[in-house]
Amino acid sequence: MASKTNRQVLLARRPDGEPVPADFELAHTPVPAPGEAEFLLRTIYLSLDPYMRGRMNDERTYADPVEIGGVMEGGTVSVVEASNHTDYAIGDIVVGRGGWQDYVLSDGTGMRKVDTAKAPISTAIGVLGMPGMTAYTGLLNIGQPKSGETLVVAAASGAVGAIVGQIAKLKGCRAVGVAGGPEKCRFVTEELGFDACLDHRAGDFEAELATACPDGIDIYFENVAGRVLEAVIPLLNFFSRMPVCGLISLYNATDLPPGPNQLPVLMRTVLTKRLSMRGFIVSDYASQQGDFLRDVGQWLAEGQIKYREHRIAGLENAPAGLIGLLKGENFGKVVVEVSDDPTTGS
Amino acid sequence: MASKTNRQVLLARRPDGEPVPADFELAHTPVPAPGEAEFLLRTIYLSLDPYMRGRMNDERTYADPVEIGGVMEGGTVSVVEASNHTDYAIGDIVVGRGGWQDYVLSDGTGMRKVDTAKAPISTAIGVLGMPGMTAYTGLLNIGQPKSGETLVVAAASGAVGAIVGQIAKLKGCRAVGVAGGPEKCRFVTEELGFDACLDHRAGDFEAELATACPDGIDIYFENVAGRVLEAVIPLLNFFSRMPVCGLISLYNATDLPPGPNQLPVLMRTVLTKRLSMRGFIVSDYASQQGDFLRDVGQWLAEGQIKYREHRIAGLENAPAGLIGLLKGENFGKVVVEVSDDPTTGS
Repeated sequence: MASKTNRQVLLARRPDGEPVPADFELAHTPVPAPGEAEFLLRTIYLSLDPYMRGRMNDERTYADPVEIGGVMEGGTVSVVEASNHTDYAIGDIVVGRGGWQDYVLSDGTGMRKVDTAKAPISTAIGVLGMPGMTAYTGLLNIGQPKSGETLVVAAASGAVGAIVGQIAKLKGCRAVGVAGGPEKCRFVTEELGFDACLDHRAGDFEAELATACPDGIDIYFENVAGRVLEAVIPLLNFFSRMPVCGLISLYNATDLPPGPNQLPVLMRTVLTKRLSMRGFIVSDYASQQGDFLRDVGQWLAEGQIKYREHRIAGLENAPAGLIGLLKGENFGKVVVEVSDDPTTGS
Repeated sequence: MASKTNRQVLLARRPDGEPVPADFELAHTPVPAPGEAEFLLRTIYLSLDPYMRGRMNDERTYADPVEIGGVMEGGTVSVVEASNHTDYAIGDIVVGRGGWQDYVLSDGTGMRKVDTAKAPISTAIGVLGMPGMTAYTGLLNIGQPKSGETLVVAAASGAVGAIVGQIAKLKGCRAVGVAGGPEKCRFVTEELGFDACLDHRAGDFEAELATACPDGIDIYFENVAGRVLEAVIPLLNFFSRMPVCGLISLYNATDLPPGPNQLPVLMRTVLTKRLSMRGFIVSDYASQQGDFLRDVGQWLAEGQIKYREHRIAGLENAPAGLIGLLKGENFGKVVVEVSDDPTTGS
């Protein structure tokens, strides 16, 4: 059960580099009552995602930062507990951006009802939610996979990378993952069916990547930057594509890395290989949500796409969960269990 | 008149950084005689272009390097002096890749007859040739200019940059050029009609660029890299585009620049601004040659596009011409006058 008050995780101060627990504050506020045409949501699952680190900084990227003292933002799966809204009834399961808190009021903006018969409801913030749609839209629109091509994606056991590689396989590509440690790599090849997975912590990672990509790299789905990106660049093929979805290795950085300046290396590759790079966020492809839910929903139902969740018990542990996620300590899509899931009774 | 022998400029050795005269060798060989279905071309004009520096290195980029002892490659406008080819008659003016030499045999592969009534024939290696088509195809296909947007292009008085900015103006954009020195900048604004032109040698170039682009930058047509690129990145708008056509400031570099490593700066911009970057060479758009000749030919005839040539007298001065081009010493499209132009009598 959720607590009787509304627990909220606030941004206490802006992190200096790597976030620490004191950057967050757990507040207790009254549970609000829905006004006219509003409904009250109780959070069941909270999604933790790398982009949240950016919102903690005092700079506008593609969204405004979280204010100091404001509730941390995040995607949630919730249940309607009270409603003055004709479209939402008590007991409805809803996905949206409820934030790091037990309860939130909504007028329905940005909310969508979840089909509880289709898949476990936590998938609405995972493989059938924002991370899955990020993988699907970025890969298909920018990556444009063709049968026989080679794709590389990092964080390959994670929420986005796992789906990118599996969709690439379904499109006939060779999928090469990068992950942190042998256990994750084994999961990526044995469970997810990637053709290879390399440990980016290995001393000879660059050489192993070259060996795993004997025909070069046609698509690099960028979500980490740093060492992986620099190892990928020399292997990119003519007319290769790079959807840029995230840069997790940079998110806690406070300074630029030391030299030499690698920018010319990338620029030469863009020019001579006619590399195509493009940054995106999932909302750029909002109109493709129907296609995404149909395709990935079907692949999931058929067992052609698998996923793994990294569960964290309790809203109070969300800060530690995000800190760990930014260090790659999670193994799968990070889901915080905030309150009881009425569809499973757990 | 051309000399009685065939003078050829050979690659004597591979340059170490900036090319020097001793990297080239002037050879004298017999003028060849055309075989069956061949014709003999006498070079009138030789084009000098930045890409030639890349061909002098021992590495395959998008074309094989020039061999040591091989004739330097280059675009030429020539006249047919002897012919055993049914499609080419003595006196025909032909554009193609004749190389740095007085005479060359051809079977017609890669050659195209020039309409001498349309424009001065030297334009076939300039505004109506490879540089013009590079500007046209890169800007329209990758840059995708829209009315009211801001475009930035460097080397703005040169063969490609001058055309990029003028086409952008015709498409309703604000065109901001970058060039080396006040004389070139004055030409770019007063003669070519750019809205602004900035001297990249100025101490406060970065601040001047920001002032000249009050609404940010929507299209950066990249042909220089280095300081200009690093000044452009912070000004790029959401959903901006970067056709990558050349990187002249890097061509003579033997080492990477010192740190810090600016690669993360670019990657963050790609991600948060959803920047789209793509490298290209003109042959990627070979199928658009008809459109290019029609459109740019018409704009040129109407006086809507202007160009300036930097003439160099004598094939023997081509090496110094290329060395100077790579330092930005030219003022306009570099054309080597190799032999008499029968269409002008000069």
